[in-house]
Amino acid sequence: MRNLKLTLSYDGTDFKGWQTQPGFRTVQQTLEETLAVITGESVTVIASGRTDSGVHAVGQVINFHSDSKLVPETMVRALNANLPDDIAIREGGDVSPQFNANKDALRKLYRYVIHDSATPSPFLIRYAAPSRQRLDAGLMARAARCLVGQHDFHSFETEWPNRKSSIRTITHLTINRVGEYIWLDVEADGFLYNMVRAMAGTLMNVGRGFWPVEKVAEILKAEDRRAAGPTAPAQGLFLMRVTYPVEQKENAKPG
Amino acid sequence: MRNLKLTLSYDGTDFKGWQTQPGFRTVQQTLEETLAVITGESVTVIASGRTDSGVHAVGQVINFHSDSKLVPETMVRALNANLPDDIAIREGGDVSPQFNANKDALRKLYRYVIHDSATPSPFLIRYAAPSRQRLDAGLMARAARCLVGQHDFHSFETEWPNRKSSIRTITHLTINRVGEYIWLDVEADGFLYNMVRAMAGTLMNVGRGFWPVEKVAEILKAEDRRAAGPTAPAQGLFLMRVTYPVEQKENAKPG
Repeated sequence: MRNLKLTLSYDGTDFKGWQTQPGFRTVQQTLEETLAVITGESVTVIASGRTDSGVHAVGQVINFHSDSKLVPETMVRALNANLPDDIAIREGGDVSPQFNANKDALRKLYRYVIHDSATPSPFLIRYAAPSRQRLDAGLMARAARCLVGQHDFHSFETEWPNRKSSIRTITHLTINRVGEYIWLDVEADGFLYNMVRAMAGTLMNVGRGFWPVEKVAEILKAEDRRAAGPTAPAQGLFLMRVTYPVEQKENAKPG
Repeated sequence: MRNLKLTLSYDGTDFKGWQTQPGFRTVQQTLEETLAVITGESVTVIASGRTDSGVHAVGQVINFHSDSKLVPETMVRALNANLPDDIAIREGGDVSPQFNANKDALRKLYRYVIHDSATPSPFLIRYAAPSRQRLDAGLMARAARCLVGQHDFHSFETEWPNRKSSIRTITHLTINRVGEYIWLDVEADGFLYNMVRAMAGTLMNVGRGFWPVEKVAEILKAEDRRAAGPTAPAQGLFLMRVTYPVEQKENAKPG
C-alpha cells in the first residue's frame, strides 16, 4: 500500500476547523470525501496538527495510505479539480511507509497577521486581525524576545484537560512591520491550544502601549493564562510550513 | 442642505451589485440603510456608476444630501462602526451643492486582476480571475495598444438596450505582470456594460497564444460583440479610482 504526502492551503473562514465533526463543514472531512471520489477508497488522512475554526493554512501537511494507481501529479490535478475553491493542493508525492505527518513533524511555523490601519479594509477582514490603533512593532519584538527557547507556556494556553506538559521550544520568533501589517512569525517544536493567538493578543497590548515591554517575561513566569492578554481572533492566523526530517522525499516514484 | 461626498471600498463577492434590487443584498441599499440609522433621515445616494454583482471597489465615490449636523470625521467613523465588514468608508467631506458623483465623473480607473499560477490559491479566488495557463503579459500589452483613444467599443459591450452610443475614450491602458498576477489597468471617460471584462477575456485569449496580437484591432473594428472573447469573471474586477474636476474639495467645512 502506498503512503502519500500532500501539502495544501486552505482559507479557514468557512470551515469549522480541521477535524471532522458531525454536522459541520471541516477541512478533513471535505478532503476525505474528495479523496474517496478520486481513489474509490475510504481514506483517512493524518494532518501535521489540527487547525481551529477560522484559522488558515498556507502549508498544511497530511499523509494517507492508498492503493490508488494514480501518479502524484494526476492525483494533485484531480484533487484540485474536485475540491471546493477554499482548499488547494500545492504538491504531493509518495513517501516511505513509516512517514506520519503528525508524529514526524519537527517544527511548525505560524504567521499571525495584524492590519493596524485607521481605515478598515473590506478585502482583509478574512485574513488579518484589525487594530484601529497603530502598533509599535519594535516594542512588540523586544517584548517577545523572552519567549524564544524552551519554556513552560502555560500562560499562553487555553485550558485543555488532556495536555501532559506545557513545555515547548520556540526556535524562531520575529515581529516585523510590512506596510500596514504586522507579521508575527513563530516557529516551535509544537504549539499549545491557542498559543499563537494568546501571544498575539498579549503582544498587541504591548504594541499599543497598554503594557510595558517587561510585562511579557512576567506573564511567561506566572504560568497562568489569566496573566496574559486576550486570545487574538482566528482570522489572523496562518499555518505556514511544517518541517520534517530531510529523508522524507516528495515526488518519489510509487513504491 | 449639505451635500456630502464619500469614497468607499467594498468586497463585491456577497453583494448583488451596486444598485438596490428588492430581495437582494446590494451595496447601495446597505449603505442607505446605515446612513438612515446614523442621520435619522431617508437618504438616497448617487454613485459614480453601478458595479455589477461580484465586482469590487477600492475607490467608489458617492454623494448624498443631508441635514445631519455630524462633522465628516464623525460620520465616517459612525458609518464604519455600523456598516458590515465588506464595506468600508475611506474618507468623506462636504462638497458644493451642485456636485453629482455620477454626472461630474471625468474618468474612472478599473483594474482587472488575473492570477495565472498552475497552483490555485484559496486566498485569491474572491479577488482574481484564475488562469491555469501562464499568460504572456507582453503580448497582451502589445495587443491592447489599439484600444487606447476614442473608439466605438461595441465589440466589448454586453447588449444594453438603452445605450445611445458605444463611443468611449480610453485615456490609459497598461498590462503588467506583478509576480503571479497580471494587472490590466484601464482608465476611460466612461465604460460600457461589461466592457473591461470583455477586454480582459479577449486579451487573455491573446496572452495564452490562442489569438495573434493583431486580432484585437480586427475585433475593435468589427463593432460586433461576437467577434471578441468571453466576458472574464467578475471577481477579478476592481473600480480603483474616480477622477473629478479639481474644484471639488473634500473635507471642507459644512456650508
